[in-house]
Amino acid sequence: MARSLTRLFRGCQSLASLPPMRVQLSYPPASVSLRITSIRTMASQDFSLPNPSWGPDMLRLYEHYKSQCEVEVEGGEKQGALWQRLPSYNRSIKYATGGAFLSRTIQSKARLFTRNITEPGAGFEYVLFANKKEQKCVCIFQPGHLLEGPPGHVHGGAIATMIDTVTGSHAVFLYGAIMTANLNINYRSPISLGSTVLVESTVDKMEGRKTLLSCKVTSTDGSKLYTEATALFLSISESRFLEW
Amino acid sequence: MARSLTRLFRGCQSLASLPPMRVQLSYPPASVSLRITSIRTMASQDFSLPNPSWGPDMLRLYEHYKSQCEVEVEGGEKQGALWQRLPSYNRSIKYATGGAFLSRTIQSKARLFTRNITEPGAGFEYVLFANKKEQKCVCIFQPGHLLEGPPGHVHGGAIATMIDTVTGSHAVFLYGAIMTANLNINYRSPISLGSTVLVESTVDKMEGRKTLLSCKVTSTDGSKLYTEATALFLSISESRFLEW
Repeated sequence: MARSLTRLFRGCQSLASLPPMRVQLSYPPASVSLRITSIRTMASQDFSLPNPSWGPDMLRLYEHYKSQCEVEVEGGEKQGALWQRLPSYNRSIKYATGGAFLSRTIQSKARLFTRNITEPGAGFEYVLFANKKEQKCVCIFQPGHLLEGPPGHVHGGAIATMIDTVTGSHAVFLYGAIMTANLNINYRSPISLGSTVLVESTVDKMEGRKTLLSCKVTSTDGSKLYTEATALFLSISESRFLEW
Repeated sequence: MARSLTRLFRGCQSLASLPPMRVQLSYPPASVSLRITSIRTMASQDFSLPNPSWGPDMLRLYEHYKSQCEVEVEGGEKQGALWQRLPSYNRSIKYATGGAFLSRTIQSKARLFTRNITEPGAGFEYVLFANKKEQKCVCIFQPGHLLEGPPGHVHGGAIATMIDTVTGSHAVFLYGAIMTANLNINYRSPISLGSTVLVESTVDKMEGRKTLLSCKVTSTDGSKLYTEATALFLSISESRFLEW
């Protein structure tokens, strides 16, 4: 049971990239009370909106996808938006009671790993767009100077972090609460600090509780492949637990 | 050739965890001049020494391995130290000339991803010990509140970052300059923020330019497995290039 409880928390990993929402996971339902509640102050900052540190490539791609988020009118008939921007906060789930005990320090000071640097442009600058119909998710990512690994280039761990974030957010967007089970990452070429790259996620397979996604990190025109990966997630949402 | 150049930089990923040294990579040797020089000011801080944020588990394990770093005298004969502590700075390679152009901002402001948070205890608190004879490397890791993924627990990307750091530093310690080619990570159980865990790296195979390492993240007594992974590195040191 302890294992089930702790497993549940892994599944919330990517929830912090999603819009404000009330999350109540009632599994396991019987003897253990586990309730995760999203309580965010009204002043929460959405970090996936443009700021002065965004370069021309980042802004251009942001405008490109944003324009496809708007509802189009064709022949007097409204067409659904192709893409949806996913807001991003530095913490979406603030309090967990029941199965998880969080110290006061953690309660008050914890911040989402990818949004823990306050200086614009210094850490992870990124925005996610999801396309439900095509089951695709794209992230425009501008890595800052505090993400260094090799001189002038992005740390392999920071790249892994973005892959986990993009595929995890994508899986949550499509199927609800999940937990990361595996990341398999092939590094092909280094990424320069301050450049802009695309991180794209596609669904390969969905079977019972398992969702397998592919992810590619490329140049903004798609001509250069920097990193490719697969990510396996296990669903912890109630409906899919029935198939377990 | 451009590919070879950029590949070289991936290989330096883990150098930043190693002691101050002059690094000159002369491959490719002929027409392209590539020189990476480590220039660090005398005031560089070694982040792998105890600070007030280290908890009792972190300190106890640090003392345990530190005591095995010292040269023992048995029957009047000096015995070699079993373990060696690897210092850790927030940037070891400051200037790269030749193949790589780094902007002034990157030159002056870039920081190693795992050492970019200045508040003690808030980010990655860790220390690495390496054992050349047994080809093992162990890291005592205390993840801070700014590494959050699921509420109260460490982000999967932060775990991947530590796995890359520990296996990469281990490979550099044993074989010199390398580049990460693959990380394959299985997440078993979440890790609480503020806890202390062990990240252990062992060499599985060394063949030509390739080194395969295994990595486990466990509780400090080794009884609980949190994460396990394999990491593949390609050597870029001159001697091993001859086998290529």
